[in-house]
Amino acid sequence: MKVGGVSYRSVWREPDGAVGIIDQTALPHAFVTKRLTDLNEVAHAIRNMQVRGAPLIGATAAYGLALALARDASNQALAAATATLLATRPTAVNLSWALAQIRSVVAPLPPAERAASAASAAQRIADDDVAICRQIGVRGLPLIRAVHERTAKPVRVMTHCNAGWLATVDWGTALAPVYLAHDQGVPVHVWVSETRPRNQGQLTAWELGQHEVPHTAVVDSACGHLIERGQVDLVIVGTDRTTARGDVVNKIGTYLKALAARASNVPFYAALPSPSIDWATRDARAVPIEERDANEVLRVRGKEGELTLWPAHTRALNPAFDVTPAALVTGLITERGVCAPSDLRALFARQ
Amino acid sequence: MKVGGVSYRSVWREPDGAVGIIDQTALPHAFVTKRLTDLNEVAHAIRNMQVRGAPLIGATAAYGLALALARDASNQALAAATATLLATRPTAVNLSWALAQIRSVVAPLPPAERAASAASAAQRIADDDVAICRQIGVRGLPLIRAVHERTAKPVRVMTHCNAGWLATVDWGTALAPVYLAHDQGVPVHVWVSETRPRNQGQLTAWELGQHEVPHTAVVDSACGHLIERGQVDLVIVGTDRTTARGDVVNKIGTYLKALAARASNVPFYAALPSPSIDWATRDARAVPIEERDANEVLRVRGKEGELTLWPAHTRALNPAFDVTPAALVTGLITERGVCAPSDLRALFARQ
Repeated sequence: MKVGGVSYRSVWREPDGAVGIIDQTALPHAFVTKRLTDLNEVAHAIRNMQVRGAPLIGATAAYGLALALARDASNQALAAATATLLATRPTAVNLSWALAQIRSVVAPLPPAERAASAASAAQRIADDDVAICRQIGVRGLPLIRAVHERTAKPVRVMTHCNAGWLATVDWGTALAPVYLAHDQGVPVHVWVSETRPRNQGQLTAWELGQHEVPHTAVVDSACGHLIERGQVDLVIVGTDRTTARGDVVNKIGTYLKALAARASNVPFYAALPSPSIDWATRDARAVPIEERDANEVLRVRGKEGELTLWPAHTRALNPAFDVTPAALVTGLITERGVCAPSDLRALFARQ
Repeated sequence: MKVGGVSYRSVWREPDGAVGIIDQTALPHAFVTKRLTDLNEVAHAIRNMQVRGAPLIGATAAYGLALALARDASNQALAAATATLLATRPTAVNLSWALAQIRSVVAPLPPAERAASAASAAQRIADDDVAICRQIGVRGLPLIRAVHERTAKPVRVMTHCNAGWLATVDWGTALAPVYLAHDQGVPVHVWVSETRPRNQGQLTAWELGQHEVPHTAVVDSACGHLIERGQVDLVIVGTDRTTARGDVVNKIGTYLKALAARASNVPFYAALPSPSIDWATRDARAVPIEERDANEVLRVRGKEGELTLWPAHTRALNPAFDVTPAALVTGLITERGVCAPSDLRALFARQ
């Protein structure tokens, strides 16, 4: 997508193999790109959420593994680099999926051929992600268009966190249908929830603003009220991991939006590229929920720096994700089509 | 309650008639008291949430009206002062209740007798609030004790916003049973939700810390996850207005906690002094929901000052309250006892 008129992806391979990223911790107040030149820098960028979003984490880790293999392509180095990257974030399944993809390509090769092969496999993962996300947009667009045809009004979409192009390599997941609708003249308005504690709603607002999509910021707690008062036509969120039966693991707070949507008969969709499906797990209560540093809750970052929020004596708990059970999910928007959670396996069984 | 070993109420009348308050916008990082010496200062303090919480707003407005009548006790001044105070916050019913109480006392009197009479009526409202809140604690305590007797573990109470002694004249509403339980040796642990955008969770944490009640801060979005994972024994919130059929109007975000509690069969209680019951309204969708300044969402205040959160182009909507329908409320904790929402009228009909 474009930033100030220039096309960017959210991650790319530089000619010398370094990994280029947009430092998302500087957004929305500053647009800063970074060159990551070794494995540790890549792991640090993922762990500290300079890159975040399940699909982008996968692509960045793939580029990072290729970068590591360019230094040392031994079996030992391959195993160590994979372990380092895998440990950065425990919840997104794309991360382990992308690393497994690279490993399956390079493991059979002699070490001398591994780096080049990993680099092209990583590039393929990134390119595929762009194609998949565009296709999620194509598949999700009719849901938005149908509301507009029924109401003849701007379609009011609520989202959570950032599942836009910044969370993927390009296009986004939840926002891909929104961007396509906007580009095709279907009027949309996006309710952007703040997404405490890391406030990724700001990234969503920045993206939407760059693309001139109308949107309004609200605190997370306001989302139930807006849904209950008939201000929301549909909820679309991304997901870090969807289980085989269609449970959706996503940013903390997603579950509450799903409960509110169900209580008011508002459709609730999760948009997901197939690499974020965890076919091996049915019940998402088995998925590890990352607990992040309490300081993310106790302090807050903004344009001018950082503030202390809570009294000095206060401790905090900071679970980063929650589980929305399949029963609360109206549909899953995938690159293959939109389906009920119970039809996910069937949708991908048909080849 | 005590602050650094000294007993305070959250509002008081100084010997010269000035209204003393704790400036709650300086908490939890600084403890600052203020003298309000005229009607405009009182209205400003309510509007800007230097005092907040439905019962405290009522008591402060009552003292403020007495202060205004000491300057000018004419019918015209009485009407004007009432109108000024009434306009400060539209949702809490205690405000109009307290002003009506004072008016009914002073209106029949000759102007020369009004100021003294208003001052003692205001004092009575404040003293009654303390007695009522203590009684809410007494009535709610068995709910907490029963959990402890069943589990033999610390009772995990989730609350929202600040419904502690800072929100009332003393003791609090939702926190009154918690303080009594703690004082009587029933172990409690409180989940304190941040309560964006004004972060009143910090006031709750400050209060609980002063009283040495164990507690943990979480973002509002984490509350559904904690309830779903079995980490919450009961939810107790305050309320700005409860309708005759038991709909609960409270700080934005309350509704989402009630939905989550219902989905996991966790009891959800609202604690309320009877002056916050709106007997004239059944359906809370008729209650005006205050919309506050968008800058409360777009910026954030903390210990070191204020920060810009969102991109410059972003607009925000800031509804301050939401409605939890009676169907989601397990019980109402009042000074008369605990009842199902449908029994509220009967509870207060028995004299």
